[in-house]
Amino acid sequence: MIFIGEKINGTRKAIQEAILNRDADFIKKTALDQANAGADYLDVNAGTDPSREQEDMLWLLEVVQSVTDTPICIDSSTPEVIKEAIHVVNKTPMINSINGDPARLKSFIPFIRERDCDVIALALDESQSGMPKTVAERMAVLERIFEATRAAGIADDKVYVDPLIMAVATDQQAGLVAFESIRAIRETYPQAHITGGLSNISFGLPNRALINRTFLTLAVAAGMNSAVVNPENVALIESLKATELLLGRDRFCRHYTIAAKVEFSKK
Amino acid sequence: MIFIGEKINGTRKAIQEAILNRDADFIKKTALDQANAGADYLDVNAGTDPSREQEDMLWLLEVVQSVTDTPICIDSSTPEVIKEAIHVVNKTPMINSINGDPARLKSFIPFIRERDCDVIALALDESQSGMPKTVAERMAVLERIFEATRAAGIADDKVYVDPLIMAVATDQQAGLVAFESIRAIRETYPQAHITGGLSNISFGLPNRALINRTFLTLAVAAGMNSAVVNPENVALIESLKATELLLGRDRFCRHYTIAAKVEFSKK
Repeated sequence: MIFIGEKINGTRKAIQEAILNRDADFIKKTALDQANAGADYLDVNAGTDPSREQEDMLWLLEVVQSVTDTPICIDSSTPEVIKEAIHVVNKTPMINSINGDPARLKSFIPFIRERDCDVIALALDESQSGMPKTVAERMAVLERIFEATRAAGIADDKVYVDPLIMAVATDQQAGLVAFESIRAIRETYPQAHITGGLSNISFGLPNRALINRTFLTLAVAAGMNSAVVNPENVALIESLKATELLLGRDRFCRHYTIAAKVEFSKK
Repeated sequence: MIFIGEKINGTRKAIQEAILNRDADFIKKTALDQANAGADYLDVNAGTDPSREQEDMLWLLEVVQSVTDTPICIDSSTPEVIKEAIHVVNKTPMINSINGDPARLKSFIPFIRERDCDVIALALDESQSGMPKTVAERMAVLERIFEATRAAGIADDKVYVDPLIMAVATDQQAGLVAFESIRAIRETYPQAHITGGLSNISFGLPNRALINRTFLTLAVAAGMNSAVVNPENVALIESLKATELLLGRDRFCRHYTIAAKVEFSKK
């Protein structure tokens, strides 16, 4: 399981304040906590308005990299910000994100290829109908994306597909569509990774953490192998370890028992 | 989801003592608590030695039925005990259990048919190799069982198949074998129910409740629609409601939100 730590995101109020106030200590702590909790990548999203996003992103990257060498997931919708950020990260980064929009693919793919980055690919096409509703719509968008990445010589295993998880409160089929999409992606692109944020699924419902971790269990069984999460969420991580154990992926129950012992010793 | 309340079982120490001391109040409370928590059947197992099992079973049934009209799941390996018990239960009972042993099938099937009972069918053949290891071994036993039940005119939807869940601590594949067995049973016998105890899977590991409820999530996704559980296990029930929600089986998220509200009001 590949964890992308979600916390350094300027759309979150505490992070936004830290960015505006240049509160490096808060950002450092947020980065370190996630790295220590086992994040494989740290998502960094300045989330500020376009006039200052580039400057804020570069500051964030400098601060984060001063305390951890965990690879960065550069999160921006602005190609210029990503292009600039790519040159200041110490390790090969992940790019968050491309989608089916041809203009975006055209502008992003060259530097993804050049720096051998990993990249998150959203199963939507912002130039067309917006959010996809069905599994087939998602697969059609992904076909165009993989056509472009493959044509550029980007290996499928550099691509982290985000199937786009919707709220089950507004669409009763949202869970099923997500699991079917994950199965279809796993079958069609066996080398690709499958990732995504979990919190959309539980939007508008009580006890969201329970829905999110139950979703992760079913998504992992369907073929998801990465997630954009808070890696300090102990209940989520324990539930994931139990899932991997039950799916026969934990030799001698080692990871599960280690996770359980860590948790027991904290209590 | 059809819940069979597991608590009135003479192999559990507290129940054994209550049976030996004829502590009717304790049995009544155990029965009522499970019924109020939503049990569809109450398993009743005297668990005492053969010389007194029949007498103890009849006492238990009288006590349980004095406080609840929840149907009984008569749990015994002795045909004589079951035959006697069938005549004192007020509602059509479930019988726990038959298996692939031809002698057992021969002695049990006539009275199951006669009283139109539901019946738990274990995917094992005690007359042969004992515990099945593979999915194929389970399916072979079930083929013999359904041949017998169908020949006697017992509808498949009266049969609750128990795929036999083993400990993942002793066999890393135990979870996968269980899920594959459930999928195979669901496909081969679409009208049959699939049930089973959950606790075997986590035997020998820490935080067993987490493994058990994660198992239930994956088992329900695979096609399990019943379980032998403690219906008062709130974390298990909430996790199940989240699972059903995510599998698109909870219109307007109604059951989930009701369960969540009940839980919130308790806190």
